[in-house]
Amino acid sequence: MKSLTATLAGSAAAFALASPAMAQDELRDWALDMFSPVPATVPALEDNIVTPEKVDLGKALFFDPRMSASGVFSCNSCHNVGTGGDDNMPTSVGHGWQTGPRNSPTVFNAVFNEAQFWDGRAADLAEQAKGPVQAGVEMANTPDNVLKTLNSMPEYVEWFEESFPGEDDPVTFDNFAKAIEAFEATLITPAPFDAWLNGNDAAMTEEQVAGLETFLEAGCASCHNGVNLGGNGYYPFGLVEKPGAEILPEGDKGRYQVTETAVDEYVFRASPLRNITETAPYFHSGVVWDLRTAVDIMASSQLGADLSEQEIDELTAFLGALTGEVPEITYPMLPAETAETPRPSSEVLPN
Amino acid sequence: MKSLTATLAGSAAAFALASPAMAQDELRDWALDMFSPVPATVPALEDNIVTPEKVDLGKALFFDPRMSASGVFSCNSCHNVGTGGDDNMPTSVGHGWQTGPRNSPTVFNAVFNEAQFWDGRAADLAEQAKGPVQAGVEMANTPDNVLKTLNSMPEYVEWFEESFPGEDDPVTFDNFAKAIEAFEATLITPAPFDAWLNGNDAAMTEEQVAGLETFLEAGCASCHNGVNLGGNGYYPFGLVEKPGAEILPEGDKGRYQVTETAVDEYVFRASPLRNITETAPYFHSGVVWDLRTAVDIMASSQLGADLSEQEIDELTAFLGALTGEVPEITYPMLPAETAETPRPSSEVLPN
Repeated sequence: MKSLTATLAGSAAAFALASPAMAQDELRDWALDMFSPVPATVPALEDNIVTPEKVDLGKALFFDPRMSASGVFSCNSCHNVGTGGDDNMPTSVGHGWQTGPRNSPTVFNAVFNEAQFWDGRAADLAEQAKGPVQAGVEMANTPDNVLKTLNSMPEYVEWFEESFPGEDDPVTFDNFAKAIEAFEATLITPAPFDAWLNGNDAAMTEEQVAGLETFLEAGCASCHNGVNLGGNGYYPFGLVEKPGAEILPEGDKGRYQVTETAVDEYVFRASPLRNITETAPYFHSGVVWDLRTAVDIMASSQLGADLSEQEIDELTAFLGALTGEVPEITYPMLPAETAETPRPSSEVLPN
Repeated sequence: MKSLTATLAGSAAAFALASPAMAQDELRDWALDMFSPVPATVPALEDNIVTPEKVDLGKALFFDPRMSASGVFSCNSCHNVGTGGDDNMPTSVGHGWQTGPRNSPTVFNAVFNEAQFWDGRAADLAEQAKGPVQAGVEMANTPDNVLKTLNSMPEYVEWFEESFPGEDDPVTFDNFAKAIEAFEATLITPAPFDAWLNGNDAAMTEEQVAGLETFLEAGCASCHNGVNLGGNGYYPFGLVEKPGAEILPEGDKGRYQVTETAVDEYVFRASPLRNITETAPYFHSGVVWDLRTAVDIMASSQLGADLSEQEIDELTAFLGALTGEVPEITYPMLPAETAETPRPSSEVLPN
């Protein structure tokens, strides 16, 4: 295409006629250097074969509130598949009505992130899944109690056996996490941007295409690139200009808490941008509700760019092209408790 | 059938051969005097036509946590369609980590109850739906704030228009409740007992059939009758012998709180028994986790009956035949918030 474009560019008449299409092709080439469309199939996971049985088990676990100590919260509470894969709160409410420290990220397409959590402290979704279940301010459970709960219900034991064939004792906390990872790997949301990347010029509006051009020209893609337009690198929040403490609370030093390296102070994983229109409020602090405002803050604090109102509008419109189609999810029917099932406890234990 | 049975009973040989089938037919006749199978179609609702649009809207509202002040709880939190239509807790945890006063009843087949709540204070599911949304210990919202929330999202406004065609201002709290009622009316769970009532002898095991006979002979059906084997009459808990304060807390006088009539002290709506195997713990106080124990308590406190261990086993087995097939429920994709959407508030206001 590039060479054809070059050839035709010599002819003014041909240029005038073909210009929009050529411009899109050139832009697409640039975009494909920075981004990849979501694949049409579930990606392979490291050391975790995705089977229909495992996905079904993972879905049951994802929706089961009995995985929390109180019986109130499931994974879906904070990563609600009906509301963009997150919970639309600044920070989540958890066990004992405590609030978590950071904004809940979307589960959609999370499988394409290089690492999980705002500070990347989990290498993959299986490792991530083990976190909230045990966090005192979230689900406040223990691996032991999760296993007791699972083992108390014969259907769960059977589902683990079917999902991890050949294993002597398949009901383990590792396998619990792997099943959830397998389900989450199916939560891929193809968007108009993917159709456009795949060659369909009509998939994005002119405004969205203009927004993409601004996105690339302004340098947003330096941090927000790859399949998820983010989620695969760590950057200081306030690279050029530090935002106020309301947006960047001083107490949360980000990746520094993982690496304890001075250079990682206030460093966070670049937020994946897919479905960002559905996942307000924004930033790790979850204090900015308006996407346009978030774009403006990013442009000035990260790039020192002074975008025009029109550019911000176009850029925001482009982000809308990242809102995808969520796969149909049938609500799982969960096993009934037995006499052996640990009882829910809403008691809040001291730290 | 009854007369045929009587005719054949004269012949000892015929009796011996035909006995089980005849006995089932006789038992079925008796059962059909007391119970009705669930219908194959969604029942008509008073002043509320059930349309696919309204059911879809109701489903969205049922699953939308933004109907609560905090954004934490949806109808599905306490009436979880994956766990028997209830939450498997003694009493539900709600706004501000407060616990409710009574055990959450199942939403499945609730449309067949004569009235809703343990004290029957709501005439139908639409009236019921308005309760928890406003209860300070549950969703802690106000009708005003619910309407502001709904009106802030154009998709919701459109869905209300489609569900209530011809209405000038379809986004009302009444219509909110009617849509939820319409969705809930679809949550009907045909069970082996229905197949048996409909003439399929093989649908229940011998033990379950024996349990049904005991159920009828012991008089359980005096209170637990109709489509839901309960849900359509009010009876004192402890008709013959009052259970201890742990099971029947003195502070909760039941229907007395609705009627303020002395005769209604400790009077509760007979619990519907469908899907009872999935909805532990039991009673309005939610303190008994074991179904067999609950059966035993009921037999002695309500009927003064001293059932044998075998009879209790059979009766409990019969209750298992009431566990039905839940219709497939696709998780709804909910509209995204806008700048006008009221923000979630986890603040607990003083009463």
